[in-house]
Amino acid sequence: MYKELNTSTRILMGPGPSDAHPRVLKAMSTPLIGHLDPEFVTIMDEVKEMVQKTFITKNHLTFVVSAPGSAGMETCLVNLVEPGDEVIICVNGVFGGRMADIAERCGATVHKIEKEWGTVVSAADVKKMLEICPKPKLVALVHAETSTGALQPIKEISDLVHDAGGLLMVDAVTSYCGVELRVDDWGIDAIYTGTQKNLSAPPGLSPVSFSNRALKVLENRKTKVQSWFLDLSLVKNYWGGAKRAYHHTAPVSSVYALRESLRIVLEEGLENRWKRHQEVHLALKSKLERLGFTYLVEEQYRLPNLNSVFLPEGNDEALLRSKLLNEYNIEVGGGLGTFAGKIWRIGIMGESCTLNHVNMLISALEDIKEFKKG
Amino acid sequence: MYKELNTSTRILMGPGPSDAHPRVLKAMSTPLIGHLDPEFVTIMDEVKEMVQKTFITKNHLTFVVSAPGSAGMETCLVNLVEPGDEVIICVNGVFGGRMADIAERCGATVHKIEKEWGTVVSAADVKKMLEICPKPKLVALVHAETSTGALQPIKEISDLVHDAGGLLMVDAVTSYCGVELRVDDWGIDAIYTGTQKNLSAPPGLSPVSFSNRALKVLENRKTKVQSWFLDLSLVKNYWGGAKRAYHHTAPVSSVYALRESLRIVLEEGLENRWKRHQEVHLALKSKLERLGFTYLVEEQYRLPNLNSVFLPEGNDEALLRSKLLNEYNIEVGGGLGTFAGKIWRIGIMGESCTLNHVNMLISALEDIKEFKKG
Repeated sequence: MYKELNTSTRILMGPGPSDAHPRVLKAMSTPLIGHLDPEFVTIMDEVKEMVQKTFITKNHLTFVVSAPGSAGMETCLVNLVEPGDEVIICVNGVFGGRMADIAERCGATVHKIEKEWGTVVSAADVKKMLEICPKPKLVALVHAETSTGALQPIKEISDLVHDAGGLLMVDAVTSYCGVELRVDDWGIDAIYTGTQKNLSAPPGLSPVSFSNRALKVLENRKTKVQSWFLDLSLVKNYWGGAKRAYHHTAPVSSVYALRESLRIVLEEGLENRWKRHQEVHLALKSKLERLGFTYLVEEQYRLPNLNSVFLPEGNDEALLRSKLLNEYNIEVGGGLGTFAGKIWRIGIMGESCTLNHVNMLISALEDIKEFKKG
Repeated sequence: MYKELNTSTRILMGPGPSDAHPRVLKAMSTPLIGHLDPEFVTIMDEVKEMVQKTFITKNHLTFVVSAPGSAGMETCLVNLVEPGDEVIICVNGVFGGRMADIAERCGATVHKIEKEWGTVVSAADVKKMLEICPKPKLVALVHAETSTGALQPIKEISDLVHDAGGLLMVDAVTSYCGVELRVDDWGIDAIYTGTQKNLSAPPGLSPVSFSNRALKVLENRKTKVQSWFLDLSLVKNYWGGAKRAYHHTAPVSSVYALRESLRIVLEEGLENRWKRHQEVHLALKSKLERLGFTYLVEEQYRLPNLNSVFLPEGNDEALLRSKLLNEYNIEVGGGLGTFAGKIWRIGIMGESCTLNHVNMLISALEDIKEFKKG
C-alpha cells in the first residue's frame, strides 16, 4: 500500500536544507551503536571539539541540541531568561520575531528593537534602547536573517551589551560555516545554529555554545528551567563531565551525519569556505542582475549565501518557482511573512554553493518561456 | 585529524536503540528534498497515516515531534497542562518520575501515585488517589516502563480517569509496535512514543497522538503554551491543515527512516509483530532462567521486549557487560536509578527480536569464563 521511498533528485537552492554531501549521506546509513556506547561517547567528544573549532570558541559548554535550530533558539532563551527578566530582542525578520515570542513565553519583559525587514540593527539603535532598558539580562539578535538575507554586524553591539552588563545571544543558523563568525572574538555569550544550511547535513540538530559569563547566569538561576528537555543543568552532564549521565537518547545517525559534515568543513578550512561562499555569491549576483533581479538588502549588509531578490517586473513568482521545481528539479525559496509572494530566497549554501549550481539556475530561468527579463 | 567514521558492528540488545533494518538505513541515505517540497508533504501525510494505523487510532491530531521521546513527553504535558492544574502522575520508574518533573515545571499541582519500581499501578491505587484529587485535569502513566520492564494495564484505569472527567496520557515509548497497544479502544487521550525501540529506526523522533477530548482541552487553554517549539497550536498547521504553515525545518532524513520502518511494521502486521516479540521473549526467558537469571517483574506484568533480570549471584555485572560489548559486540543495558548496578535490561525489540539474537547472547555468556551460572 505504501510504496518504496522514491523522491525526485532535487537541486536545493532555497533557504535550507541544502544539498548534502554523499559522504554525509553515507555516514548516516552506518549501522547504529548505543547512545551510551563508549564509541559513541568518543564521537560526541569529537563532534563537540569540531563544533568548538567551527564556532571559533573555547567555550566548554558547547554541544548539540537533539532537535532543529528552533529548539536551539529555545534552549538559549529558556536557560538564560527567568520570569521578570528584562531582555532586548532585535527584530528585523521572522527569526527575531520568534525569539521575542519565546522570551515572552519565558516570562521576560521584552523590549523589541524593531527594524524594517531587510535592514539591520545599528549600534545607535541599541544605544537608544539601552536608555529605556539600561540593565538588560540579555540582548538577542540574528546574525543572518533567513527571512530577508540580511547580515547583522555583531562586534560593536557586543561591546555595548557587555558594557551594560548583559549577555549577547546570537542566532547563527544561516551564517555558521558560510560567513565569518567568531564566537570568542566577538564576545558572543549564547549561540545556536542548524545543520541544514552551510554545513550541508540533514536538518534536525542544533549546535549551541555558551560563554563563561552565560554559565554564571545559568548557575545563579532562582527558578527551574521551564523545559526539562532543554534544561542545560541536565543536558550538560550528558554531553560532558567525568561520567556521562543519561538524559535522553541522542539521535545517533544524525550525529554521525553531523560529524562527517564538520570533518568536511575542517578539511576545506573555515576561511576558505567563507571565501567560496563570497565568490559564488558574486557570480550569482552578476548573473541575476543581468536578468533584471534586484536585491532586497543593501550591498554592505547582504548575506552571500542567501540571496533575497525581487523578480524583474511582470513575472509570476509562484508559477516560475513551480516550473523550476517540477521541470528542472531546482528548489528556490519564496518569501516569508512580509515578503511572501514578493521575493525569492536563493540559497547557495555548503554543497549547493558551486558555480554549477548558479549556472543551472540561471540557464533554467533563461529556458522558461514565461520568464520575463528585466 | 578526525578520521573517517569507523564504528564497531554492534548487536543491540539494550533498552534502545535496537538494530536498524538495512532498508531503514538505506532510506536514510536518500538525497534530501526540501521540507516544504510537495513530495515531502506527501511523505508527511503517509507517515501520519501509518502512525495512526500503528497507534490504532483515528485521531486527526497525530503527527511526529521533531525530537526524541522525551520531547514527545514534554509535548503532551506542556500543551495539556496549565499552571494551577491538578494532575495525577503514576510513578513506578524513571519515566513516571520524569513526567512528574515536567508537569511541575508546567506549574501543575502534581499528585504522585508512587509504586515500588518493577511493579505496576492498580485500578485500586488510582481510585484511592481520586478520593484525594477527584477532578484531575490529567492522569499520566507509563505503558512500558523502560527502567524496570514492567507492562502497565491501561483499560480499567482509563475508565476511572474518564469517569472523573480527566484525560489519560500514556508513555508508549517501549511498548509501541512491540506489545498490544490500542489508542482508541483504550481511551487514551494523549500518547507519545519513540522510534528507536520496536520500530527499529534511529532515535530522534517522537510520534504522538491526541484524542478529540484532548483537542477540546487544547482549544480552551487560558495561557500560551510555555514552549514555542512544542506548541501544538503552531505545529499542527505544519503537519496538517489545508495549507502547510512553516514552523520549523523537519528532520527530512529521519522522517525518511521513520517512513520505511513503519512500512516494515505494516508489512509484518501489528498483531504478528506483537506475537513475535512474545515468542522470542519466551525463548529468551527459558534460556536465561536456565543460567540462573531471575526476573525483576512478576510474570503477568512482564514486558516481553525488555527483560529486566537479576544476574545469578556472584557475578560482576559491569565486568560481564563490558566483556559482552568488547569481545562479542553485544550491548545489553544496565540498571537505571534504583537498579543501577543491580539488574540487566535485555532488549529484544524490532530487528533485534530474533532467536539468533537470543542465541548469540546466551552462547556468549556461556563462553565468558568469569560468568557464574546460578
